[in-house]
Amino acid sequence: MDIGATSIDLAIADFSPNILFRYSEEAQVRKGPIKILGRVCTLLEKMIRENGLQADKLLGIGMGVPGPVDFSNGSVVSPPIMPGWDNYPVIQTVQQWFPSANVVVDNDVNVMALGEIIEGAGKGVNNLIFVKIGTGIGAGIISHGKIYRGASGCAGDIGHISISKSGPLCHCGNKGCLEAIAGGPAIAERALRAAQAGDSPILLKFIEKNYGTLTAEDVGDAAREGDPLSIEIIRESGQMVGDVLASLVNFYNPDMIVIGGGVSNLGNLLLSSIRQAVLNRSLPLATRDLDIVFSEIGRDAGVTGAVNLALDYMFTIESNNGVVERDAD
Amino acid sequence: MDIGATSIDLAIADFSPNILFRYSEEAQVRKGPIKILGRVCTLLEKMIRENGLQADKLLGIGMGVPGPVDFSNGSVVSPPIMPGWDNYPVIQTVQQWFPSANVVVDNDVNVMALGEIIEGAGKGVNNLIFVKIGTGIGAGIISHGKIYRGASGCAGDIGHISISKSGPLCHCGNKGCLEAIAGGPAIAERALRAAQAGDSPILLKFIEKNYGTLTAEDVGDAAREGDPLSIEIIRESGQMVGDVLASLVNFYNPDMIVIGGGVSNLGNLLLSSIRQAVLNRSLPLATRDLDIVFSEIGRDAGVTGAVNLALDYMFTIESNNGVVERDAD
Repeated sequence: MDIGATSIDLAIADFSPNILFRYSEEAQVRKGPIKILGRVCTLLEKMIRENGLQADKLLGIGMGVPGPVDFSNGSVVSPPIMPGWDNYPVIQTVQQWFPSANVVVDNDVNVMALGEIIEGAGKGVNNLIFVKIGTGIGAGIISHGKIYRGASGCAGDIGHISISKSGPLCHCGNKGCLEAIAGGPAIAERALRAAQAGDSPILLKFIEKNYGTLTAEDVGDAAREGDPLSIEIIRESGQMVGDVLASLVNFYNPDMIVIGGGVSNLGNLLLSSIRQAVLNRSLPLATRDLDIVFSEIGRDAGVTGAVNLALDYMFTIESNNGVVERDAD
Repeated sequence: MDIGATSIDLAIADFSPNILFRYSEEAQVRKGPIKILGRVCTLLEKMIRENGLQADKLLGIGMGVPGPVDFSNGSVVSPPIMPGWDNYPVIQTVQQWFPSANVVVDNDVNVMALGEIIEGAGKGVNNLIFVKIGTGIGAGIISHGKIYRGASGCAGDIGHISISKSGPLCHCGNKGCLEAIAGGPAIAERALRAAQAGDSPILLKFIEKNYGTLTAEDVGDAAREGDPLSIEIIRESGQMVGDVLASLVNFYNPDMIVIGGGVSNLGNLLLSSIRQAVLNRSLPLATRDLDIVFSEIGRDAGVTGAVNLALDYMFTIESNNGVVERDAD
């Protein structure tokens, strides 16, 4: 299962692993762990029952959550967009509901990165950066074919890399963070302001239709209709994401960067701006064989990764105190 | 052995591995592979003979070179500060000289990073960034306790991360690269110009003594004597390096950053500026347990890493065509 900031994605798979059943619905993670985990478990139980399966035969559950995870004990640590989840016993809660299953929790972008190297654009790739651009911006890192979590489980938190010391205030407390300038809400807000100042008749129509608001998707739609303002805003966002990725390419020299998340719907204009910025600023040797592509499996990346995470950790041995021992690397 | 931009460091070790004999001398890597490898092999042969050992009993040679290395075949690829070395058969040359030894070549900063986790400040650390600040600026990356080389062997090339789009032209062809602004020569040049403009009587004395030139070490010495200009230049350099490292800490979430290389002699003022910049701009979770320290083994980091690299790859199997097969991860 993959719990996103605004959605729940569930899948049931066999050992192959083939995904047999799939379900998604909208849900706000900020409603807190009691409501969200209750809903997730209820939905999973229903899926199992309705498809003629037995809940007590479930062997493993892999979960992605939209915050940093201390992988050694499965707790969510100081998650900025998940109030109430800090150190909540996620594993234990789900375990009580499904006692036969070995439960493993990881950051959702890590899980998506894993999904991409197993079934997606990065199938079989050893060193990959998966970049999710949506409300926030985050990265999942694959090193030597495995998820790289870092020392405290928060590797890949690229949304708070500074791109302008005089930029807008971010919810993290710093100024000029990438996600505060190039994330979905930033794109929407810039477009709203410019349109209200009279710079885009097309966007003004969207604003009227939406009762005074705009989304990043609207900006994408307007760009596809040829709106110069929207094209410019998407180009700028792509360039800012690309500038940060250029630094990370010099540092990490990945085989591939996969772009996913809601804002990736903005399409080829975004992708080409990102590519151009990376090629402009990275060293030739680091970009010689580098692919920068959109996710091929989109919303299935999370559940594909979660299924494989569950399989990887299904046979870990429980120690005496009942805590599953895991290799945090 | 560790071939640096301006020096050769040699060591002979036993299987423990204990370093038994050690030799260093100045040498310019830009003199090209024939001269430098000839000198290195002559020196090694002499060391072996003079210490009563036999060259034909040498089992392994680990080498660090100051450029990107394609680790799968041991060739140096487009090395910016190593004219004439591009695709030169380094392994084969050394192998002919010492036929009994299995020869392995890697980038010098990678080798230093390995040295640090084996004998240095990062002993036993799983995820580490070793930053060498000298003429150039580069990083060696340890992931899951092993050298991380990236897709093309050039991971860690942080010297060409852009920190100012309007900055000075770098020898790589881009503007505003970290090493063009915060490396040793940049520090020396900024100090020279400011001192010539009358901003530092202490530095003027150094310039007179040096017949019109300055080095980064001079700036360090002047700072220790309390020269406000030198202190300010070192602080600014530390801050720029720290700003880049802050981004990398958000991305990579290492357990430790080790600072080495010539400019690290500038001392605690540099270290505290780097630390301050990282703490200011990285996420609290990523810096909670992060150590930022100077190398404890200094110039021995390279040879320590090289010895251990040689040991790691001593027993790899030669394939039919005589090329040593290696796991490039």
